[in-house]
Amino acid sequence: MQLARVTGSVVATQKSPSLTGKKLLLIRRVTPEAPWQADQTQREEVAVDSVGAGEGELVLVTGGSSARHVFSGANEAIDLAIVAIVDTVSR
Amino acid sequence: MQLARVTGSVVATQKSPSLTGKKLLLIRRVTPEAPWQADQTQREEVAVDSVGAGEGELVLVTGGSSARHVFSGANEAIDLAIVAIVDTVSR
Amino acid sequence: MQLARVTGSVVATQKSPSLTGKKLLLIRRVTPEAPWQADQTQREEVAVDSVGAGEGELVLVTGGSSARHVFSGANEAIDLAIVAIVDTVSR
Amino acid sequence: MQLARVTGSVVATQKSPSLTGKKLLLIRRVTPEAPWQADQTQREEVAVDSVGAGEGELVLVTGGSSARHVFSGANEAIDLAIVAIVDTVSR
Amino acid sequence: MQLARVTGSVVATQKSPSLTGKKLLLIRRVTPEAPWQADQTQREEVAVDSVGAGEGELVLVTGGSSARHVFSGANEAIDLAIVAIVDTVSR
Repeated sequence: MQLARVTGSVVATQKSPSLTGKKLLLIRRVTPEAPWQADQTQREEVAVDSVGAGEGELVLVTGGSSARHVFSGANEAIDLAIVAIVDTVSR
Repeated sequence: MQLARVTGSVVATQKSPSLTGKKLLLIRRVTPEAPWQADQTQREEVAVDSVGAGEGELVLVTGGSSARHVFSGANEAIDLAIVAIVDTVSR
Repeated sequence: MQLARVTGSVVATQKSPSLTGKKLLLIRRVTPEAPWQADQTQREEVAVDSVGAGEGELVLVTGGSSARHVFSGANEAIDLAIVAIVDTVSR
Repeated sequence: MQLARVTGSVVATQKSPSLTGKKLLLIRRVTPEAPWQADQTQREEVAVDSVGAGEGELVLVTGGSSARHVFSGANEAIDLAIVAIVDTVSR
Repeated sequence: MQLARVTGSVVATQKSPSLTGKKLLLIRRVTPEAPWQADQTQREEVAVDSVGAGEGELVLVTGGSSARHVFSGANEAIDLAIVAIVDTVSR
């Protein structure tokens, strides 16, 4: 899974039915170094939220078919999902 | 999912049957910064449209097996699909 | 799907049975700009042809499990397939 | 599979049920050269441990649907797993 | 599939059962230009051999779920497999 920061949200009326009723959050992957802030050189991506994440939070995102499997029911269009809100990162 | 701009379209006569009757749109991923214009340093890619997207629009694209699952019926050759037209991106 | 140019072909005697009888073509992804020539900075890759593509042609390649699904019968070792020969790209 | 070093661990209370009871380890991919230390230019990622790996160890990580399949039972949110602790790398 | 050179091998005692009895080879992807030597700027990766490849040989590697499908029986931890030894590359 990838570490990312939630940076906003996206609204789309015309979309795949499997995205209906789902929270589309804007995320940005983090810098290689603590404290894992959003890496401004990285393009923002859109992930479907599965844990109630809020703006600015450090989250785990999963991709590909795993992202789809996180959601039971209609899920076909999903290839990126937020699957955890990080409490602590320790070294 | 990835944010991209529709930049054109592609026609191919000789193709996998699963691409027949499908709209093949040229897309380019966006720059890391608002207002999310097409990033000219990025190679253009070809996505199958599932929501009636038009040239210049800001869209969400999904990849891999999820892109295939967006289309019922013959879909095997698809690994990139447009799954939403973005209305707003808010921070 | 990705835009690429066919740049050659590969012969391998010792290989997965699922590659037997299949045309292994050398491809190189294209530059970000028209007229979509092969991008010499990109590593060449090997795709299984499904549409009779020839050297120099502009083609669409699909990757991952979708590439496998393009071929009925033995297909397990395939993760990149040529699925269309491009006639026109319009903007 | 990819060579990586374990660099820490992550705790998340709010998460996909399929991550409950699983060890979430922080990993960093290695440099191109021996002795395969963590490559500081690479973003840290989070992998689910399946072999009891400890901090600093050189491990193999697998990604995508394969990472999911490593874990029987609830596994949907997993797209990166540690699947071996490396004893020796020989050339 | 990707062109790569076999550069060594890896031994791991503590590993996923699906890697037991399998040859874990160190590979490096090749340079963009003939004669396709190992590209020293690329990180080495670990692929499961399915064709009896030897050190220094030019091989084809396949990734993702396709790599898993190359091996019948226990295969879950595999996301990279050597599927051919290249005889010739012609342009």
